Amino acid sequence: MMVDSSALLMPTSAKQLLRDDDSLLRQVFFNVLRHHHPNTANKVDVIYALSQAWCKSKDDGDFELLEKYLGNLKPEECILVASSFSHMLNLHNLTEEVANTQTERAGRMGELTLPTRSTNMSFIKLTNQNGVPAQKIYETLCSQTVELVFTAHPTQAFRQSLLKKYARVRGYLDELHNKRMSPYEKIELLEAIRAQVQAAWRTDEIRRQKPTPQDEMRHGLSYFQQTIMDMVPTFYRRVDTALANIGLPRLPLNHRLFEFGSWMGGDRDGNPNVTAGTTRDVVVLARLEAVNAYFQAVETLMFDLSIWRCSPELKALARRLAARAVAADPGRVAEERKKRNYADFWTPIAANEPFRVVLSHMRDRLWQTREVLHQCLINPQLSVRQALLDTDSYLDVQELFEPLHLMYTSLLSTGDESTANHKLLDTLRQVQTFGLSLMKLDIRQESTRHAEVIDAITRHLELGSFLAWPEEQRTSWLLGELAGRRPLFPPGIELSPDEAEVVTTFRTLAELPTDSLHSYIISMTRTASDVLGVVLLMRECGMTDLLKVAPLFETLDDLHNAPGTIQTLLGSEWYKGHISEHHDGVQECMIGYSDSGKDAGRMAAAWALFETQERIVAVAEQHGVRLILFHGRGGSVGRGGGPTHMAIRSQPPATIKGKLRVTIQGETIEQQFGEREVCFRTLDLYTSAVLEACLDPPSAALPEWRELMNQLSETSCKVYRSYVFQRPEFLEYFNLATPVGELGRLNIGSRPASRKQTSGIEGLRAIPWVFAWTQTRFHLPVWLGIGDALAEAVEQGKLPLLQAMYDEWPFFRGLLDLVEMVMAKADPKVTSMYDAKLVRPELQALGDELRAKFGATKAQVLAIVRQDELLEDPSNGASPELDEKIRLRAPYVAPLNVLQVQTLCNLREFDAAGSSGPRAGYQPSEAEIIELLSRDPHRDGKHPFQAAMDDCLMITIKGVAAGMQNTG
Amino acid sequence: MMVDSSALLMPTSAKQLLRDDDSLLRQVFFNVLRHHHPNTANKVDVIYALSQAWCKSKDDGDFELLEKYLGNLKPEECILVASSFSHMLNLHNLTEEVANTQTERAGRMGELTLPTRSTNMSFIKLTNQNGVPAQKIYETLCSQTVELVFTAHPTQAFRQSLLKKYARVRGYLDELHNKRMSPYEKIELLEAIRAQVQAAWRTDEIRRQKPTPQDEMRHGLSYFQQTIMDMVPTFYRRVDTALANIGLPRLPLNHRLFEFGSWMGGDRDGNPNVTAGTTRDVVVLARLEAVNAYFQAVETLMFDLSIWRCSPELKALARRLAARAVAADPGRVAEERKKRNYADFWTPIAANEPFRVVLSHMRDRLWQTREVLHQCLINPQLSVRQALLDTDSYLDVQELFEPLHLMYTSLLSTGDESTANHKLLDTLRQVQTFGLSLMKLDIRQESTRHAEVIDAITRHLELGSFLAWPEEQRTSWLLGELAGRRPLFPPGIELSPDEAEVVTTFRTLAELPTDSLHSYIISMTRTASDVLGVVLLMRECGMTDLLKVAPLFETLDDLHNAPGTIQTLLGSEWYKGHISEHHDGVQECMIGYSDSGKDAGRMAAAWALFETQERIVAVAEQHGVRLILFHGRGGSVGRGGGPTHMAIRSQPPATIKGKLRVTIQGETIEQQFGEREVCFRTLDLYTSAVLEACLDPPSAALPEWRELMNQLSETSCKVYRSYVFQRPEFLEYFNLATPVGELGRLNIGSRPASRKQTSGIEGLRAIPWVFAWTQTRFHLPVWLGIGDALAEAVEQGKLPLLQAMYDEWPFFRGLLDLVEMVMAKADPKVTSMYDAKLVRPELQALGDELRAKFGATKAQVLAIVRQDELLEDPSNGASPELDEKIRLRAPYVAPLNVLQVQTLCNLREFDAAGSSGPRAGYQPSEAEIIELLSRDPHRDGKHPFQAAMDDCLMITIKGVAAGMQNTG
Repeated sequence: MMVDSSALLMPTSAKQLLRDDDSLLRQVFFNVLRHHHPNTANKVDVIYALSQAWCKSKDDGDFELLEKYLGNLKPEECILVASSFSHMLNLHNLTEEVANTQTERAGRMGELTLPTRSTNMSFIKLTNQNGVPAQKIYETLCSQTVELVFTAHPTQAFRQSLLKKYARVRGYLDELHNKRMSPYEKIELLEAIRAQVQAAWRTDEIRRQKPTPQDEMRHGLSYFQQTIMDMVPTFYRRVDTALANIGLPRLPLNHRLFEFGSWMGGDRDGNPNVTAGTTRDVVVLARLEAVNAYFQAVETLMFDLSIWRCSPELKALARRLAARAVAADPGRVAEERKKRNYADFWTPIAANEPFRVVLSHMRDRLWQTREVLHQCLINPQLSVRQALLDTDSYLDVQELFEPLHLMYTSLLSTGDESTANHKLLDTLRQVQTFGLSLMKLDIRQESTRHAEVIDAITRHLELGSFLAWPEEQRTSWLLGELAGRRPLFPPGIELSPDEAEVVTTFRTLAELPTDSLHSYIISMTRTASDVLGVVLLMRECGMTDLLKVAPLFETLDDLHNAPGTIQTLLGSEWYKGHISEHHDGVQECMIGYSDSGKDAGRMAAAWALFETQERIVAVAEQHGVRLILFHGRGGSVGRGGGPTHMAIRSQPPATIKGKLRVTIQGETIEQQFGEREVCFRTLDLYTSAVLEACLDPPSAALPEWRELMNQLSETSCKVYRSYVFQRPEFLEYFNLATPVGELGRLNIGSRPASRKQTSGIEGLRAIPWVFAWTQTRFHLPVWLGIGDALAEAVEQGKLPLLQAMYDEWPFFRGLLDLVEMVMAKADPKVTSMYDAKLVRPELQALGDELRAKFGATKAQVLAIVRQDELLEDPSNGASPELDEKIRLRAPYVAPLNVLQVQTLCNLREFDAAGSSGPRAGYQPSEAEIIELLSRDPHRDGKHPFQAAMDDCLMITIKGVAAGMQNTG
Repeated sequence: MMVDSSALLMPTSAKQLLRDDDSLLRQVFFNVLRHHHPNTANKVDVIYALSQAWCKSKDDGDFELLEKYLGNLKPEECILVASSFSHMLNLHNLTEEVANTQTERAGRMGELTLPTRSTNMSFIKLTNQNGVPAQKIYETLCSQTVELVFTAHPTQAFRQSLLKKYARVRGYLDELHNKRMSPYEKIELLEAIRAQVQAAWRTDEIRRQKPTPQDEMRHGLSYFQQTIMDMVPTFYRRVDTALANIGLPRLPLNHRLFEFGSWMGGDRDGNPNVTAGTTRDVVVLARLEAVNAYFQAVETLMFDLSIWRCSPELKALARRLAARAVAADPGRVAEERKKRNYADFWTPIAANEPFRVVLSHMRDRLWQTREVLHQCLINPQLSVRQALLDTDSYLDVQELFEPLHLMYTSLLSTGDESTANHKLLDTLRQVQTFGLSLMKLDIRQESTRHAEVIDAITRHLELGSFLAWPEEQRTSWLLGELAGRRPLFPPGIELSPDEAEVVTTFRTLAELPTDSLHSYIISMTRTASDVLGVVLLMRECGMTDLLKVAPLFETLDDLHNAPGTIQTLLGSEWYKGHISEHHDGVQECMIGYSDSGKDAGRMAAAWALFETQERIVAVAEQHGVRLILFHGRGGSVGRGGGPTHMAIRSQPPATIKGKLRVTIQGETIEQQFGEREVCFRTLDLYTSAVLEACLDPPSAALPEWRELMNQLSETSCKVYRSYVFQRPEFLEYFNLATPVGELGRLNIGSRPASRKQTSGIEGLRAIPWVFAWTQTRFHLPVWLGIGDALAEAVEQGKLPLLQAMYDEWPFFRGLLDLVEMVMAKADPKVTSMYDAKLVRPELQALGDELRAKFGATKAQVLAIVRQDELLEDPSNGASPELDEKIRLRAPYVAPLNVLQVQTLCNLREFDAAGSSGPRAGYQPSEAEIIELLSRDPHRDGKHPFQAAMDDCLMITIKGVAAGMQNTG
């Protein structure tokens, strides 16, 4: 009997690594805690020990001990204890990330034989050809592109200042592992770690006011400047090295493995403070960022390319430029003097350094471009595109690319390949990937906002009310208008401020550089007229080249008749002509199921999505139109061990075709791009996931799988709705058993909590709905209804069919793995604690009923995946690892849940009892505590007990969220 | 018998390290060379082998083989071969540097037990208290400051673009040794090295036009931005860590271990294109650099210091600033909008983040300061000081320091030491060390220029001609004027352009911020009136606080009556009052012996210097004035193994007193600060050298040592002059036997070659004089005359006294070690080759005579230092190591010398024979070669043979210089 086998699977050192870092950071944190709050530190010690005991033994005796102990903490201690566990959890999470990267590095260095599953490094795949000829892989690589679109996420929980500090600690831990240091350097590094942990601990972790869209945009930008722009060329280079190693050439210069997009500052759906001005700002800011990066790259190249030999074409260009420099002599030197503070080379460059002559000229134009963009920022009524045109700045990326490419071919022609393929190649690839816009902005708005504008027009022209027309009349009218050229906007029309804002947005878009925009997304699209309306408005507001319009089908109904909508669109000759002329026959379409998940349950939503994708792709193919599907990765519960990988495999085959466009939400941006190694890893993850999806696409679904899938989603939907919408007492139960009511107090994200204030579930946005159940460790929206559907199928004796579907159908497997993973994170014991403390006894029957359903669902899932326990099958390596992660975090999360329940109790009693309750007597006198309770600038007169409980609640909510997130 | 002892001394791995890197770079270079010029590569291979054989065997047969082989290279091959060896030599030099740093790191990491001599790390000294109590060391450290003054150097040989590439290669080699890499990363690193080596090889290594002073300034600036500003706080931190390790506190915040100064843009001695405008530019540029660095530091701190607890004083300040921000609300937000592109935090900061409120305010002021400085650059007639005052920018460094210090004490008071001592401490120390000026500029001008201005005044006022007055009349008149307040400058006085320039300079200085200037240096100072004249001119031109005036005594005569001059100055009540009032009783004085070395020989110059220092220090002490000596480290032949260390020890005791001000010339700047590790090492070298000089100062000189020293320097001076100035045929011999005539063609450095064109040695500047003899590996200016002086003393039976002087007197030891080191680098065999080929037979007797003298001198030196061979005594560890370095370089230098001789021959024959000579037929036809010969934009019509030989000559001159330089 060997030393038990899991040690070998998660190779000894990664596990060891995880454990060492974990205990190092925990020790550092405790020293900080003990230094500032000695007696709290002791309590945290005890709580941690009790929590660990319970997590190991799972028996009620230990749980009560834990509850009792937490129960008699004083309010100010609740804050500090909650805060301690939240910090420890975050520190623990980053040791997981470090362990991941370290394991991978070790794998890359060949120090460890990694269990084959976890990293599908494109290189290893590249280099050992499991059955695919090298040439084939090369072609696939040269025809695939991954578009990563950054969006701000609503539950952006932790303040940037904390995330930055943790990122630093992560960097220091990496140094600890990879750099050889003298004892003194090590001491200084440990001090640096301690300084960051202390600073994090002493920072108010609750965000006191709402971030603005520009806040979010700047954060997004900082990732490009700090990691992405460097790591993309590094990644390309690594691909080349691996290709060279098996005798294949470098990737062609003009191929893009990645494109970057963003919603930050473009997404105005239910977000009134994203205005036309905001959009313009973010476009200019992004271009500024790009120009800055190229400015530095050109300066570096000016040092490198001091070579005097070059190709005749380059010599000719250099001579032309030098002549121009000399011709404009007197004015130029004076004008040159004005732009004085180049780091180097501000005397005219000698002609026998052709590269520098050209680069020096490029530097001037970049400088010029930067000035113009500044001006655009300073005065908003300048038209960006016009300003760039008038001042001979860079507007078209080709003008930047060509001279660089000319230098590249020149170096190749004079036999200077090494120099050519060094910094110059990196710069060429940056220009290729990021262009002058850095990333392309998507505009997102809700369909009704456009209909109201058109309605204002038709009523003004006495054509009746557009909103009252049936769908056919709308489309035919719109198509009529679109086919004709008659101006539509009567001067002096009366518009409401909302309608005016829509029009201003279109006008602003009309004068932005086109390469800064990608497509216009219409959320809540129901019919074809929603799309045509936008095209009409774009044209009427003077946009010369119109954006691609991407409908977003969100509700189940809209999804069901999405194919019809697409059919209507592509059915009209005008529209088809329009997209083949303006968008070379590509129609983009976005499908997100966050809303459909809310009103039909996960299974029905996922299936509806799956079918919809197939159908609209089919519809598009009939019309010879290429349809690109845009995936919003909704909610934070992706799955461990490469959500991207599995998410991509579970798309219907033939919908990827080498082109993946996917969103990345706020928090995961930090995780996936916050640090260089992690960024490298992410680029690798996506490349290989798409590569694999192309090389051996998943097999198509069999008819009887689909049949059964229809039945499953119908039943699950019925059961889901019977609870969520038809059980009269469900809503009340929901509001009592979860902190959904108190979520409003978190100023989370820049957008208001609910769309147009209908009470009840319908009015609730998908995010808080899912988030509330995550807090109570129940994740109801994910599994509710699935159990019944599966049970029904099993009774019909279709278990073997279900098992076949799990084994062979990536879609079904992805779905069940998600449910399995979510259930592994769930803990009904904790959920029942919420009921016991917060829900009226007569409503607790519903709770017990739901938990019974949870158990039944779990049993069904286990039967299908043929396991006795969740997460235990070794074939996909990520599961035991995930299981390990959940277990390592559990002792940190449990106290946070217990504290949350107690805090909710206190808050609700306090709201009820008001100032006459027993707690009203809580009037702390020491300055230290009063300060602690008065950190909220808007607290104005909140009772100290209330203030303490609010803060404590906020912290536990963030903590639990951190405990539930996926790393990697 | 143990494995022979040298292996142990230069620890195996450093030697090994040196050898591995050496062969790696040589292999990379050969691949590049072979790729571009296969047949040249083969020839270089053979030449290298032949050169190695000769260096090992030293016999004439091998030397002839080498000569013959080089003799029949074609002209274009001469260029490529010379260039190859020059490159190989540079690559070899940087492996030496890397080996040094690596050995030290290893020493620091305790991986190697370093032979105790080489690095006297302050820490090791700190931590093992050889007899000095810890407290004593701490006090010494807290009372010592090293002022490093950067100057542009005349033989700045290699183009920045090459030096940058080598610096990169050095960085890659370090990575190779210290970073753990995967095989792919290693491949990419090797490619990166190859890319740099190739780019270096393909760059025209001859500088085709003269650099401007601003060029030099920007280079100087780039070292601050890239290494110095980061490494100084790192160094302080390391000192603290070591202090903490033996229970001593950190260095006090307000103590400066280093101050930085510069001559770049201030030194106008014999350099007409350093104008008043230039000086103003460099001051502004330096301040811009400092403000940029602080801007980034403040932004980083804004992330770090997100702490909400603070001291009452800080809270008060934050509240004041926040109130001010709110008070100026409407205008401010709009005005704020204008300055938009902060990376973060551009909404008003919440009051409960006091640190950020203060930092945000500081950021605005820094931004403001930057704008103003831009304006000062753009329009030259703005007064810098006034512009900064009017716009509430930072002018006084205290305004920047105080808020930072307040935050520091606040963090300490709330128990946040770790955070306080992290980034904030680093920033505080940067502000302490670099202030707002980054570095202080010295102004240097020649004494006669001021006398001419005053002369113009006295003649204008019909007082007669100042220049014609005897010295007493000048001083008394000047003192009269200075004591009185009467304005002196009559309006509409007639000045020549040179005189006007002097006046403009003073006026410009009057309106520069005072903390950007250090002292005014008068080169060629002869009398006290030279100093008083400058003080008068400063006052007359409106300078409110006058600069310290530092006389520079250069010639032997000026040195001899320097004490008299100082006596006269300090003798006058007015002047003494002046310096105690304005410069708190400190008089600075500079002594450089580059000129005195030229006209009296090294020994007489060194001794004159030594005595002068003692005497003027004594004179100053009589008057209770503190005299600070400023050392110009002349010429490039310092000594291996820590010139600084030995140079400092050989100062007369009591002249250091914890305060060292020293210049660092162009080339050594790159070497000592070009890269982070090297920079760290340099800071360490200087700190420990001064520390040691204070802790156990060298013993005072004994009377009979001085007596003998007088005799030695008298005799050596007599003999030196008998050759250099009285031997009629010496001048002709010098012009024939060295490339001094052709040096003019190197456009080396921004200043013209000779001061006012008298022919002959007197007219020659010290630099070319020394440089010419370095090229022929004879170094005559260093040793000529010393042999005779020593021989005379030995005949008088004073050998034991000489030996005692060598053993116990650091001054005498430093002098002989220098001579020993220079002789070890000399190679009379090579020198005689110059004679044989370039000197008329009847003049060769002089050559043989000089070489015989060389041999005699060597024998004398060896007798005194009790060695059989140069450089072989183990007691000072650096010697065998240096011997090793010389031997490793020899095979690269020898071919360059041989080529130089042949090229000089060809050039001189060609000049003589003109177009009728045999070489005129050299008309290459292949494009490749024509291009090679037409890289010089100013060649206009030079015969191709001439062009080839000029380039070849230039390259060999640079190569030999590189072979003779000291690393480390």
